[in-house]
Amino acid sequence: MRSYKPEELFDENGKLKAEPAELAPKGGRRMGASPHANGGTLLKDLVMPDLRDYAVKVPKPGDAVAEATRIMGGMLRDVMKLNAESKNFRVMGPDETVSNRLGALLEVTDKVFMEEVLPTGDHLSPDGRVMEVLSEHLCQGWLEGYLLTGHHGLFSCYEAFIHIIDSMFNQHAKWLKVTRHIPWRRPIASLNYLLTSHVWRQDHDGFSHQDPGFIDHVVNKKADIVRVYLPPDANTLLSVTDHCLRSRHYENVIVAGKQPALQWLNMDSAIEHCTAGIGIWEWASNDQNSEPEVVMACAGDIPTLETLAAVALLRANIPDLKVRVVNIVDLMTLQPSSEHPHGLNDRDFDSLFTADKPIVFAFHGYPWLIHRLTYRRTNHGNLHVRGYKEEGTTTTPFDMTVLNELDRFHLAGDVVDRVPRLQRWGAHFKQLLRNKLIEHKQYIGRYGDDMPEIRDWKWPY
Amino acid sequence: MRSYKPEELFDENGKLKAEPAELAPKGGRRMGASPHANGGTLLKDLVMPDLRDYAVKVPKPGDAVAEATRIMGGMLRDVMKLNAESKNFRVMGPDETVSNRLGALLEVTDKVFMEEVLPTGDHLSPDGRVMEVLSEHLCQGWLEGYLLTGHHGLFSCYEAFIHIIDSMFNQHAKWLKVTRHIPWRRPIASLNYLLTSHVWRQDHDGFSHQDPGFIDHVVNKKADIVRVYLPPDANTLLSVTDHCLRSRHYENVIVAGKQPALQWLNMDSAIEHCTAGIGIWEWASNDQNSEPEVVMACAGDIPTLETLAAVALLRANIPDLKVRVVNIVDLMTLQPSSEHPHGLNDRDFDSLFTADKPIVFAFHGYPWLIHRLTYRRTNHGNLHVRGYKEEGTTTTPFDMTVLNELDRFHLAGDVVDRVPRLQRWGAHFKQLLRNKLIEHKQYIGRYGDDMPEIRDWKWPY
Repeated sequence: MRSYKPEELFDENGKLKAEPAELAPKGGRRMGASPHANGGTLLKDLVMPDLRDYAVKVPKPGDAVAEATRIMGGMLRDVMKLNAESKNFRVMGPDETVSNRLGALLEVTDKVFMEEVLPTGDHLSPDGRVMEVLSEHLCQGWLEGYLLTGHHGLFSCYEAFIHIIDSMFNQHAKWLKVTRHIPWRRPIASLNYLLTSHVWRQDHDGFSHQDPGFIDHVVNKKADIVRVYLPPDANTLLSVTDHCLRSRHYENVIVAGKQPALQWLNMDSAIEHCTAGIGIWEWASNDQNSEPEVVMACAGDIPTLETLAAVALLRANIPDLKVRVVNIVDLMTLQPSSEHPHGLNDRDFDSLFTADKPIVFAFHGYPWLIHRLTYRRTNHGNLHVRGYKEEGTTTTPFDMTVLNELDRFHLAGDVVDRVPRLQRWGAHFKQLLRNKLIEHKQYIGRYGDDMPEIRDWKWPY
Repeated sequence: MRSYKPEELFDENGKLKAEPAELAPKGGRRMGASPHANGGTLLKDLVMPDLRDYAVKVPKPGDAVAEATRIMGGMLRDVMKLNAESKNFRVMGPDETVSNRLGALLEVTDKVFMEEVLPTGDHLSPDGRVMEVLSEHLCQGWLEGYLLTGHHGLFSCYEAFIHIIDSMFNQHAKWLKVTRHIPWRRPIASLNYLLTSHVWRQDHDGFSHQDPGFIDHVVNKKADIVRVYLPPDANTLLSVTDHCLRSRHYENVIVAGKQPALQWLNMDSAIEHCTAGIGIWEWASNDQNSEPEVVMACAGDIPTLETLAAVALLRANIPDLKVRVVNIVDLMTLQPSSEHPHGLNDRDFDSLFTADKPIVFAFHGYPWLIHRLTYRRTNHGNLHVRGYKEEGTTTTPFDMTVLNELDRFHLAGDVVDRVPRLQRWGAHFKQLLRNKLIEHKQYIGRYGDDMPEIRDWKWPY
């Protein structure tokens, strides 16, 4: 130990001498005080564009078609542009930015590539702000590091494969939970996931690409850290994205489709609906000024489409049936307010879902998740949930819903089974529904595509 | 195309000539018919030892201490030995075979290591049948490949980190589901997970090592593929392990502790209990020949310990309270029989859990899983579940249960809150419980260890 020459370093009282003490860095250059290790201190708000600039025109519900994530891509492009000087926004993804329809980003930036760019290189450069590699682990790790050092970002991923980073999600959630209670730690930007190419539209990929269970995994973490959004169309996706990119210290999961789809809400309605997180769709309901006989609830784009188609079938065949349509964007509203800060209080929940009427709930994910969120609610005993029950193959889009009994015909049949007066005389209508399902199977077996009445269906009211 | 000289390969009718046709392999050497690609055709039953040879002697409940996974290790050693000639059994794990107390395996085999073994190498050899690498992905991939080619195996892992292979678990489950319905595919051996070093005993590792959510992930897969077992002690672990190693075409998850713990069942009782999967523990109950006033249910080793300690507190302080103790080994028994082949029918379930009495359920994992499994049961409205709610740190074993309100004092208090006659006069007892919790916090703050009355607690009856 004497070789360290302590007599040169310490004075006669054993105190470190001034000269070596000077060598230690000061202030923010001390390792434990580096602002890059407390990224929240460096964090600047993103400059956000006006989301109305990207709105899809929806003159009336169902009167427009758009690809939700492509619309979102336009907004992300301008977020990238508006914050180019601050260099504090990046989008990560496993080589899916374009296939997930976020390609507009490449109008204003490139994909980062540090090696020599060959003439065949497409939108590659060392200062690109889109980061792609076919490793969900790397995307997640990149984004975590980027957020922890005071930046903003989004990770877009095929829904089924986001399970690859389940364990990393856990550790980040635990870190967020613990640091929320450490006063000197400043909040960082939220870790935003866009899950697309989802379970209901795996037309060419099939069973291996179908797993909506990441949100089951997510909701096991502390309620003050996790948020789950299922916007049913493009304008609601814009509103949710805007909200998530402004938020702090959460893990936000957004599930949205990328295929051309009917659009339901204009921008004003979308903002109102997403701000509440849950609500009655007045234009689709006919129970105004009375109690409904059945509540048709839906969460997710495909379940919303099938629910509306089921409602149209019901209204055409049983015109006096009082139906209420409730759409859920923010899944956490379903939990009791004691369990999650977004949870509806019981009075509001009972008012939406009634205390004793049947509820037919079409859900994007595994149906049990809805039960797990609502088991304490007054009317839980009347709640019947359809969702993905691990039935799938390479088939038509509509057939995927049929295999899992989430399609319009099953949903309408569920209503007949559960509304007492229809149980008595609904057999004719149920036979019509059954025959439609037989017709569907025959048709896809013959033509390999969905029936025109399904493909071209429109909201008739 | 002419350069392939088709005139030399085909005769004038366009038929392949005999000579090149001869080159194609025949029978089992055809790529699609290789028995290694249909491993079930090669699969031989394991030669299994008699599990009674490893039984812990339990003269009466609670009258023995053992480390469950160490006892299991003795059995695995002999499975390895008895099948050494067949070379068809391997144990995989991320460098945890010894720390998970399965070290007895190394008495009869080594850890596989293909490079030169240095003198410092410990139990390493190229023909070792324990496979270790600190990558859960590799362990899972190795075992999948090994099972698919007609062998048997087990993957032992820290509970929290098994999420690393969530996505691989999914794909294997999907493969098992689909191949179960392909007639020429022979069933393969089950993929067996032992999850240990679990959430309740992370004494030195803390919050980052606490996640009991893999079983939530597992139960989303098809019921005819997945099995989840929570043996409460060593003899039940032996029975479950014996069953899993003999099974076919499942993914079996076994969750069991490795720490010294009280033992409850002798071997005969353990076999009976595990074969049923769920049952009343007569010796811990005092509601014989009457209706219970409360059902205390438990699944998992630590929740079982805390439940029994709560029962002892209740019986000492409220001797006339009628308590029924139900222990669950096979989690799938809780589901309706329509949802899972192991599910109890409603009559049996109601008979165990009553139609209207309060149930206080102490569960190993996230409490919502129990609700998700039981929401259709008659008495679900009276079911109150305690489990891990993402509260943890580096603390004493008992304090982990206190942080999550799964400890004996909270459980006993839950009973007072829910049994109507105790609600009226239970305040004195509740104050005693509250004071015990205060005493506990004071003690661990001072001594950094649990109170002797907790550490040395024994079943008093």
